[in-house]
Amino acid sequence: VTTTGIEWNVHANSAIPTRRLPLRVALLGFGTVGQAVARILVERGDLAGRLELTQVFNRNVGRKRAAWTPDSVGWTDSFEEVLAAAPDVVVEAVGGIDPAHEWVTRALSSGASVVTANKLLMAAHAPELIALAARHAAHIRFEAAVAGGVPIIDAIRSGLAGDDFTRVVGILNGTCNFILSRMTDGETMAAALEQAQRRGYAEADPSSDVDGHDARAKLVLLAGVAFRRHVRTADVPAGSIRPIDAIDFRYARRLGGTIRQISMVELAREGELQAFVGPALVAEASNFARNAGAQNLVMVTGRYGGATTFSGEGAGGHPTAVAIVSDLLALARQDRRVDSLDAPWLPGTIVAPPARPYYLRFVVRDRPGILASITASLAQHDINVDAVLQEPGFPKDHLPFVVTVEACEHTALNAALDEIDAENFHAEPPLVMPVLPGEDHVAPMH
Amino acid sequence: VTTTGIEWNVHANSAIPTRRLPLRVALLGFGTVGQAVARILVERGDLAGRLELTQVFNRNVGRKRAAWTPDSVGWTDSFEEVLAAAPDVVVEAVGGIDPAHEWVTRALSSGASVVTANKLLMAAHAPELIALAARHAAHIRFEAAVAGGVPIIDAIRSGLAGDDFTRVVGILNGTCNFILSRMTDGETMAAALEQAQRRGYAEADPSSDVDGHDARAKLVLLAGVAFRRHVRTADVPAGSIRPIDAIDFRYARRLGGTIRQISMVELAREGELQAFVGPALVAEASNFARNAGAQNLVMVTGRYGGATTFSGEGAGGHPTAVAIVSDLLALARQDRRVDSLDAPWLPGTIVAPPARPYYLRFVVRDRPGILASITASLAQHDINVDAVLQEPGFPKDHLPFVVTVEACEHTALNAALDEIDAENFHAEPPLVMPVLPGEDHVAPMH
Repeated sequence: VTTTGIEWNVHANSAIPTRRLPLRVALLGFGTVGQAVARILVERGDLAGRLELTQVFNRNVGRKRAAWTPDSVGWTDSFEEVLAAAPDVVVEAVGGIDPAHEWVTRALSSGASVVTANKLLMAAHAPELIALAARHAAHIRFEAAVAGGVPIIDAIRSGLAGDDFTRVVGILNGTCNFILSRMTDGETMAAALEQAQRRGYAEADPSSDVDGHDARAKLVLLAGVAFRRHVRTADVPAGSIRPIDAIDFRYARRLGGTIRQISMVELAREGELQAFVGPALVAEASNFARNAGAQNLVMVTGRYGGATTFSGEGAGGHPTAVAIVSDLLALARQDRRVDSLDAPWLPGTIVAPPARPYYLRFVVRDRPGILASITASLAQHDINVDAVLQEPGFPKDHLPFVVTVEACEHTALNAALDEIDAENFHAEPPLVMPVLPGEDHVAPMH
Repeated sequence: VTTTGIEWNVHANSAIPTRRLPLRVALLGFGTVGQAVARILVERGDLAGRLELTQVFNRNVGRKRAAWTPDSVGWTDSFEEVLAAAPDVVVEAVGGIDPAHEWVTRALSSGASVVTANKLLMAAHAPELIALAARHAAHIRFEAAVAGGVPIIDAIRSGLAGDDFTRVVGILNGTCNFILSRMTDGETMAAALEQAQRRGYAEADPSSDVDGHDARAKLVLLAGVAFRRHVRTADVPAGSIRPIDAIDFRYARRLGGTIRQISMVELAREGELQAFVGPALVAEASNFARNAGAQNLVMVTGRYGGATTFSGEGAGGHPTAVAIVSDLLALARQDRRVDSLDAPWLPGTIVAPPARPYYLRFVVRDRPGILASITASLAQHDINVDAVLQEPGFPKDHLPFVVTVEACEHTALNAALDEIDAENFHAEPPLVMPVLPGEDHVAPMH
């Protein structure tokens, strides 16, 4: 029995090894999130017995040093110094894959646990890092990497663990939700994006948000936690919200819905997942449509409990810091046993999506026979048209109209769209969005 | 070092005592919830290594015995037999305070942990039972006692533990929400109640639901978990939804809102809580107004993370069973260390509510001077009138109208209402409801 880092804490009639408390916490990165973590650790006196901020690492640390931190905190710009101090937990709040990957790997290898907010790192390397942690009787936690302050990972792993999950669907990117909410209210995408940038929701280059890459990394993590399967990020189809136009909101409203960036993963069969990220038509009465501003929302569906919905602040220093400190507290409670929560993520495969209804928006240079041509292509692939909508008042050479189709296989739709794309009447490439089912089908077993 | 019930599980470079898995689970009560718990334990093969259903206790157990349970399960109608088998966990799904109180006490005293769905038992006895569990290095968990399948207790204790809570507000009674939702759509209370009874949401005697006693017990538990303070159930003011009439929904709509049974607890200062259960006016655009049918919804507000909202199935066998099995899995992960989650609940005091705006609905036998009299009484207690609403078309001898007042102290309002009550123009007692603030004030720190 080696007792490195472990203390025998005799309680009642049983002897129990615990981590020595308070856990000594080293913080990598002192930006918005890192500072907010330090604030909570310093301000909340009731945490003192459990968590102690011992070190802060940041480049040019001299300029960063905060007067409100205790004198006992060591400041450094050397990662080697952090490791040499043998912290119990390393909080990684630097972001990006490099050098975070190396630092997290070395921290876990040294026996420290890691709490990270890094969705890109975890989406790419979760299985390897979880296994590495297990080998060193350490833990890696990443609540802050998905949906900011909304404790969705903990809910899946703990509060809802008794259920058998079938689906996770959510609004995981606050920037897209902010933009699409404002477009619902009549703003153009350019104006809404500018507002998002002005408020600090969107970066100067908004690609990662609007093209779905940010949400996709988060979805990979939710799939891992809910199904213990790891899929390659690049295998998850991601659609951009860039082609969404004001006219789409008009048509969506006529169809009783609106448009949101949706991230969805479903278990097709063991090891096979259906996943999707991109704009989708959602029912006006749904939780998704009602989720406004930059808020995140996640709905988890299980075979026994039906749908449970979580919503709140998806970003921002303080909500993200709450997720990190919650993870730290979980480590302070946890023994060093590696339990099923740390079970490996097996490789998962993305398979074709289930049959779904779709919204197809065309912008054409009008001439007779266009609708006949489109509907003929759809019919040839056994796709039933549900509705055709055409608002008046648009120029003949740039005429938008919408065809909705009943639930159909994605492959059939793609084959039909290939034919349609080959026609020469398009003024813009067609926009294809899935139509999300209403929420009444997710009632629990009775 | 005694090792009773503990096994040394050597992993990597550290030796860790764990409970011997699978945990042996005895189930008290084989009604709707108990059967659903057994179903999940039997059907979910992946739980086999962690949880094993070993015993079912029920009165007249012979008639209850289910063919789909394994032969290894022992069936008994003797609680002594349950204890004699020394289970690791006792699931209490019988409900009511007696004999559940005695059984839970004896189970904990024997060193077994307890998972219970019993809100009345926990609201009355939580501090004593938590302390008893700690003395025996056991745990008592009660996720299923509040909001059914919505994992709100786990979220407060774990996923949001990094925050410093200021307020918990929710819709905790699905029956009332079902009734009030249908009244929003124009149904009478009698018809809505009958529907609720027909669907099994409401009992033959609906008092516990409609008069707020059910929600109040749940609120006492949320206050305990969020603030580690135990208040006496009877000290929480509970208002009935019975006086709510169709006319109130008309007036609520004119005020941009609707009516929900709301349960709310806020931290006034250390040890002092403000709490309220009863009908309240909520903004039409709020999560509360949008929560329809029998769903439950809870919003937790913290100083750092802002508001986080949880919603889902608040009742029903399977959702409640998911909460119980999630608690069982938490026990299977947990060592026998008693941590801060099991910290005692200190006594808490209910203090006067904060100043709030109110909705006052009068039904009067009309004569000149009534409004002058009411507004004079309000003015005398420094209460500002916000709006007066009177819809046309009602009989003079049974005339409903509404006065809304700006934020005022509850004591001032009561004093004014005492004067108003003494007048002889009332055809019905006045209805007083707080007006809930909108949700925009709960943004997190920036």
